Amino acid sequence: MIIMPVEEKRIWPFTLLILLLVVPLVAFAADDEALRQRASQILGPLPSAMPSEENPITPEKVRLGKILFYEPRISVDGTVSCSKCHPIALYAADGLRKAVGHNCKENPRNDPTVFNAASQISEHWIGNRTSVEDQAKQAVIGPPAFGMPSYESVEKVLRGYKQYETLFRAAFPSDKEPVTVDNFAKAIGAFERTLVTPAPFDAFLKGTADAMTAEQKKGLGTFIDQGCIGCHFSPYVGGQMYQKFGIFEPYEKYTKSEKVDEGRYAVTKSESDKYIFKVPVLRNAAMTPPYFHDGSVDKLTDAVWIMGKIQLGKDLPGEQVQDIVSFLHALTGEIPEEARTIPVLPSGE
Amino acid sequence: MIIMPVEEKRIWPFTLLILLLVVPLVAFAADDEALRQRASQILGPLPSAMPSEENPITPEKVRLGKILFYEPRISVDGTVSCSKCHPIALYAADGLRKAVGHNCKENPRNDPTVFNAASQISEHWIGNRTSVEDQAKQAVIGPPAFGMPSYESVEKVLRGYKQYETLFRAAFPSDKEPVTVDNFAKAIGAFERTLVTPAPFDAFLKGTADAMTAEQKKGLGTFIDQGCIGCHFSPYVGGQMYQKFGIFEPYEKYTKSEKVDEGRYAVTKSESDKYIFKVPVLRNAAMTPPYFHDGSVDKLTDAVWIMGKIQLGKDLPGEQVQDIVSFLHALTGEIPEEARTIPVLPSGE
Repeated sequence: MIIMPVEEKRIWPFTLLILLLVVPLVAFAADDEALRQRASQILGPLPSAMPSEENPITPEKVRLGKILFYEPRISVDGTVSCSKCHPIALYAADGLRKAVGHNCKENPRNDPTVFNAASQISEHWIGNRTSVEDQAKQAVIGPPAFGMPSYESVEKVLRGYKQYETLFRAAFPSDKEPVTVDNFAKAIGAFERTLVTPAPFDAFLKGTADAMTAEQKKGLGTFIDQGCIGCHFSPYVGGQMYQKFGIFEPYEKYTKSEKVDEGRYAVTKSESDKYIFKVPVLRNAAMTPPYFHDGSVDKLTDAVWIMGKIQLGKDLPGEQVQDIVSFLHALTGEIPEEARTIPVLPSGE
Repeated sequence: MIIMPVEEKRIWPFTLLILLLVVPLVAFAADDEALRQRASQILGPLPSAMPSEENPITPEKVRLGKILFYEPRISVDGTVSCSKCHPIALYAADGLRKAVGHNCKENPRNDPTVFNAASQISEHWIGNRTSVEDQAKQAVIGPPAFGMPSYESVEKVLRGYKQYETLFRAAFPSDKEPVTVDNFAKAIGAFERTLVTPAPFDAFLKGTADAMTAEQKKGLGTFIDQGCIGCHFSPYVGGQMYQKFGIFEPYEKYTKSEKVDEGRYAVTKSESDKYIFKVPVLRNAAMTPPYFHDGSVDKLTDAVWIMGKIQLGKDLPGEQVQDIVSFLHALTGEIPEEARTIPVLPSGE
């Protein structure tokens, strides 16, 4: 038996208390750091913008692009602007199963947000738009979108406003005739290339350990461990590859899809592209229901469980689903200040 | 013959020059002041808001109302919010001949701006809405508007979002169950009661003589002298009375109206109300084409000439029409900062 002096007897319980408090804290911090490092390798924080060599971002283009984003007078029924299907108030998605264009024409698929969209390998669920610029250009004459009869008809409307002449000239100073649909597309593209939404997840990656809750961190770990990052990688948490929807089982077994969509097969006509879709960006997923290419699932918890089931062949338990959903909430970002203000469109006379 | 000393001979031309310069300036300033006083009696500057005893404006109501203004999930097809027909980017009108509601339903009449609207004796072209609150309440179940089947169905949607519960409770703290359509209408109303748009005309009335151009001042004089102010009076330059559209000749003789609208007769069923409409507010008229209850006229110059012809029995010469149009441009106001920023709507989960 060791006889402790009175002094030591008194100190010992305090030492234990301090050890009990400090050791887990250090361990926790170490866990955080390990998680941060793993996540940084596969995901990483958002950049400040999504530049393009073909279409450099300039303040003049962004200014014009933001105005054009709200312009409905270049649609065949006067009701469609980019902001119709991408209202900023709803995180630039529309909350519908499938987007609705001019004269109530239903689009073939669900409307993805334009936030962080310019980062992707292609646009639209089946990758039939090469870039945000290409998307904007094709949308104005798209039968279920703006529905204009020709590019010339769009240019004619825009040229009807003196203020547009001035704005296009400022944005494209070396062009003899700057008011063109190509420049319309570049301006919209430049605006959209600024639409990044830094989130608590980015703050965590940059070293603010408490930017994410314990549940969100656990969810991030689960998201990595369960293999979600196999497809949903990059700072955008998706948008970098195509993948079959329904690897283990046909997707329609679990979604409430009204009909089966053959996906990218419509673009390539290659059998191997049947049911192949672009992996969506998961940034702001919590703010942009409903889910999947046909908006057939309303709840994020259901969407996460279905993904586990048909993409990973795993029946994820409720707690893991909930943790992943918590992590997805940490991807809800700040809308850029510039996108939170509404421009005034050129007037009629 | 008067012999002038040499000194006086030299000074005289300078005196004349000074007189030639100064006298008209003084006379002009006196004209400005006279015009300012005349205009102040009949028109007057905008107040800072349009309060209501029944629905006092509070910051909490305005905050909620602004969010609800962008809410499409309370429409039967998920596409209609107040901002659909009143996009701020287009000065809170929609640029269409007639407004388009859910499932592309055409409204019977042209869409008036919600800016400065709460000031009127009633809402809608035929005065079948008593206030902005009444308008908002009826719109959610309006067959060509939001088209919801019942008030209960609207309340059910709103109660599905926890954040709305919090926002309604903050705005209506003494209500046991604050999430109601009546409170929805009050919140929208409170927001709209803040939407005043002070313009160069107001600055002129408050004493900044050069806030308006010479042409705009001339136009203001013409507007008063020709009798436009007989109907278009008050700081809102309209909205305070009903009047027959087509006093001297049937309006359809000059507009491109597809069919004749019997106006307020639809509300009162009184013969004397045939072709009677509410006199519209002319604030921001230059920013909100097309014109008249059926949006049948595209250009402001045409609209002004037609008004002279059929309301005053005068074939206004082109120069006077142009002057009046110039004055109307001086009514294009600043959109309130608060209305220029977009709120974020409550999320799904």
